[in-house]
Amino acid sequence: MKLFETKFYQSMKSNVPLLDRITHYIVRRKGKQMRPMFVFLTAKLTGQFQERSYRAAALIELIHTATLVHDDVVDDSDMRRGFFSLNALWKNKIAVLVGDYLLSKTLILSTENEDFDLLKVVSVAIKEMSEGELLQIEKARKLDITEEVYFEIIRQKTATLIAACCEAGARSVGAEEEICKKMHRFGNLVGIAFQIKDDLFDYTSSDIIGKPVGIDIKEQKMTLPLIHVLNKVSKQEKDWLINSVKRHNQNKKRVREVIQFVKDNGGIEYTQKTMEQYTADALQILDEFPESEYKTSLRTMVNYVMEREK
Amino acid sequence: MKLFETKFYQSMKSNVPLLDRITHYIVRRKGKQMRPMFVFLTAKLTGQFQERSYRAAALIELIHTATLVHDDVVDDSDMRRGFFSLNALWKNKIAVLVGDYLLSKTLILSTENEDFDLLKVVSVAIKEMSEGELLQIEKARKLDITEEVYFEIIRQKTATLIAACCEAGARSVGAEEEICKKMHRFGNLVGIAFQIKDDLFDYTSSDIIGKPVGIDIKEQKMTLPLIHVLNKVSKQEKDWLINSVKRHNQNKKRVREVIQFVKDNGGIEYTQKTMEQYTADALQILDEFPESEYKTSLRTMVNYVMEREK
Repeated sequence: MKLFETKFYQSMKSNVPLLDRITHYIVRRKGKQMRPMFVFLTAKLTGQFQERSYRAAALIELIHTATLVHDDVVDDSDMRRGFFSLNALWKNKIAVLVGDYLLSKTLILSTENEDFDLLKVVSVAIKEMSEGELLQIEKARKLDITEEVYFEIIRQKTATLIAACCEAGARSVGAEEEICKKMHRFGNLVGIAFQIKDDLFDYTSSDIIGKPVGIDIKEQKMTLPLIHVLNKVSKQEKDWLINSVKRHNQNKKRVREVIQFVKDNGGIEYTQKTMEQYTADALQILDEFPESEYKTSLRTMVNYVMEREK
Repeated sequence: MKLFETKFYQSMKSNVPLLDRITHYIVRRKGKQMRPMFVFLTAKLTGQFQERSYRAAALIELIHTATLVHDDVVDDSDMRRGFFSLNALWKNKIAVLVGDYLLSKTLILSTENEDFDLLKVVSVAIKEMSEGELLQIEKARKLDITEEVYFEIIRQKTATLIAACCEAGARSVGAEEEICKKMHRFGNLVGIAFQIKDDLFDYTSSDIIGKPVGIDIKEQKMTLPLIHVLNKVSKQEKDWLINSVKRHNQNKKRVREVIQFVKDNGGIEYTQKTMEQYTADALQILDEFPESEYKTSLRTMVNYVMEREK
């Protein structure tokens, strides 16, 4: 990871001082680095680790960073990972341009090294992510969203990049087509579980971890706990829930009542079980590989996704 | 161009209804289509036109559209090409995502067809454009900007994409490396002339063509007419000019006075002459090719860049 971080920082360098100040700031606020770890571990699980695997990880981390930077514009969120968002600090226009710059760096890194197989994986991921976000904007605020649409949204906006990590890891070491596809499926399952966990936090998180509860409801974003409950309660209760999200989403007391109602009606339990099914399916794919320290680490990461507290 | 438009529209298709509504809107407000024309004409000038040339044009037009969409966020401009900007109509978040989607479509189109040489040209262009815009944000508002920095900014933010058009046109028909580089230089010269002309409009345009005068001054954007005049007038006049741009840039009367001062001190004349030098250099490159209808059309386009009224 140390070696990767140096290479990654190198890949962001530019000759515009403003850009270097910003990328320095981005590197400082780096998160869990889950994505490069998935690339490295799947590369090691499926073949002989090599220089290309670093580039695969850098590609995906650049894209992930670009989407985070663009997300700062998109969500107008004031806080991200505990720091002020780029948006708040440097304004929208710069955020958009820095995101574009990082995307172009990804491209150049690929074309210079002729990593076209990796680029293919990555470009499909970018397309699916932007489609997923747009689908969410279009659908998630419709209060009659189905579970099916919910899963399509989280697959596209979150799972697709983790799937790309795992597939790119395998491709970077020249694994067979079938293994690459298997790793894609593995990443997809882990990614969906990851997003379900994220959505659960909106109902179960405490203020301690920095992410307040009820933001999704406030933003009229329908996620699994609420979608599930909507489909099983009485007409009268459903009307109350929809009315709460539709008209009283800025009322803190009412949002707390909705959260409590979802808890009392098994929304959390159901969501937790669904997530566990996804991680179980992911672990089953790992079972097909012989035991190794990489397999153990991947298993640990899957369990981390499910059990993390933030 | 008809055939190209059909193919281009196809390449934007998605399975998200919101996206299709937006791309439909983008296609409707299409501009001069100068970029695809440069691709086609340079392709025909330097070799045998083929299917790949359409893809080269689609690649660049997708990127151009993506940057325009992102620019809507960047500039927070309310009008573009006479329509309301995407930003005003659909909000920032959607503009960013649609731009990303279009960029990813570009990538997928290239990787699917293994147009890696074209992709290389295009990714360098994206990087330079975002760097150019950031450089402009950082430098252009510094009131002591030099001509050198001005030319570096317009080369990166505008000329680079037109250079990419001409280079990609030549690459799409398998022209020799030297010819590809020559076409790149040609596009670069035309692009710089194009941006100089654009900057001139801020001093010479009338309300009839929809682009009001003095916007750059209002936004404290230093362009060639003003930069030139600043460097030749007395200390006292310079102080008055800088003070006008710095503190009185929202005062319409004062902005008009600055424009008049620039005119009276040869700023327009100098800028016009500089632009003409760039187009002359561009035409000289064309001279090296045998006469053909494509060469004539390219010459016409170069003259159009210089003589256009909007």
